[in-house]
Amino acid sequence: MSVLSPAPLLSPDSLEEALRSIGAERYHHLHPFHRALHDGRLSRGQVQAWALNRYYYQSRIPAKDASLLARLPTAELRREWRSRLVDHDGDAPGTGGVARWLVLTDGLGLDRDYVTSLEGLLPATRFSVDAYVTFVRERTVLEAVASSLTELFSPLIIGERVSGMLRHYDFVTQETLAYFTPRLTQAPKDSDFALAYVREHARTPEQQQGALDALRFKCSLLWTMLDALDYSYVSPGRIPPGAFRPS
Amino acid sequence: MSVLSPAPLLSPDSLEEALRSIGAERYHHLHPFHRALHDGRLSRGQVQAWALNRYYYQSRIPAKDASLLARLPTAELRREWRSRLVDHDGDAPGTGGVARWLVLTDGLGLDRDYVTSLEGLLPATRFSVDAYVTFVRERTVLEAVASSLTELFSPLIIGERVSGMLRHYDFVTQETLAYFTPRLTQAPKDSDFALAYVREHARTPEQQQGALDALRFKCSLLWTMLDALDYSYVSPGRIPPGAFRPS
Repeated sequence: MSVLSPAPLLSPDSLEEALRSIGAERYHHLHPFHRALHDGRLSRGQVQAWALNRYYYQSRIPAKDASLLARLPTAELRREWRSRLVDHDGDAPGTGGVARWLVLTDGLGLDRDYVTSLEGLLPATRFSVDAYVTFVRERTVLEAVASSLTELFSPLIIGERVSGMLRHYDFVTQETLAYFTPRLTQAPKDSDFALAYVREHARTPEQQQGALDALRFKCSLLWTMLDALDYSYVSPGRIPPGAFRPS
Repeated sequence: MSVLSPAPLLSPDSLEEALRSIGAERYHHLHPFHRALHDGRLSRGQVQAWALNRYYYQSRIPAKDASLLARLPTAELRREWRSRLVDHDGDAPGTGGVARWLVLTDGLGLDRDYVTSLEGLLPATRFSVDAYVTFVRERTVLEAVASSLTELFSPLIIGERVSGMLRHYDFVTQETLAYFTPRLTQAPKDSDFALAYVREHARTPEQQQGALDALRFKCSLLWTMLDALDYSYVSPGRIPPGAFRPS
């Protein structure tokens, strides 16, 4: 938004429309790497690289949510946000989204100790995910909540992913993809809450632009992770020094 | 270094050798984007994209150095490190390395306000550079100093860059490349000091591994910036949403 044309104050509905149009233009369902993943055009090694790198994102989501939780002002808000920690970390060993992601990397034939060591991670993955955790820790609560709104768009990608991967890859099973099933109900519940929060609390043009920028930032982060995977493992396929090499 | 084979304590000479071998294997002079840049295989738009993105790196170097300066314990060390701030920020408007980088972007035909607005930056550039500033702020002084040791290897790349770019690109002049000339003397002075500091202060196997890891981290960061430029502007040449598009 340029200095010469100050942003107008949007109605909550117009703000929501603007948020949704960012997703329609910038969410990573449009990225060629996801198209290739879902259409069955990747090798097992390329799918391994995706799951290995995405593990780091999954593993840092609880840190991101905890740092926001620590700054929420009411028990009601904290209870709501706390459910994300339960979803990701579970109630017992082996439960929760992070553990279910490791079921996926197991199923793809990756060594679990290697995955959790992060040794084979693309540096771009680390820098992108760390930028997200830092963003949520350092920006306003409104911007932090708004950055979670990519979940508005994730059910679409997850449905397509599960059906596409099961259809196209003989090394992928329903059990391997167990991560995604609960996300189809968790993500809409979470994004409904976050969207209502942003609609209610973005009350000035500056706050609204901050919320829109936060969602753009989050989209750019997910996009950057796929750029790096695509460059390193698909086209042209140049793996940086030290990163995972499919066997 | 695995848990099963603890790292040995290295002599200062062996530590230096290990540091230099990291550069020989991982410094970005080996990256295909730099080869293409120096060999004249890039278009003006691709060189613009490189200079635009690299501007963000240049502009954050003083922040990185100031955060380290703030943690150095003696006037002697601070005076030494302060010279980096003078080199980059100059003594008057229009002087110093950051201003000279803008002479380069001017010379390449980029609008200065657009460059400094950072609007066209690749997100991967932002995340990588921010990771460097955060690393230097949060790690030990020894690791922060060690992460600067890529300057041991920069004179080689700069000499090759200046001669290669002047020979191959008719849109590049000696004046445009004024940034690089002082770096040929500044970088060795700085890296001599940093290397002596690391040789002296890395006295345990853990400290030595921390210094080696810091240099690996820094190499991965420079490499990641070129991966993103190469992916976005060369091969396959897919520019992410919102980033600079050569006209």
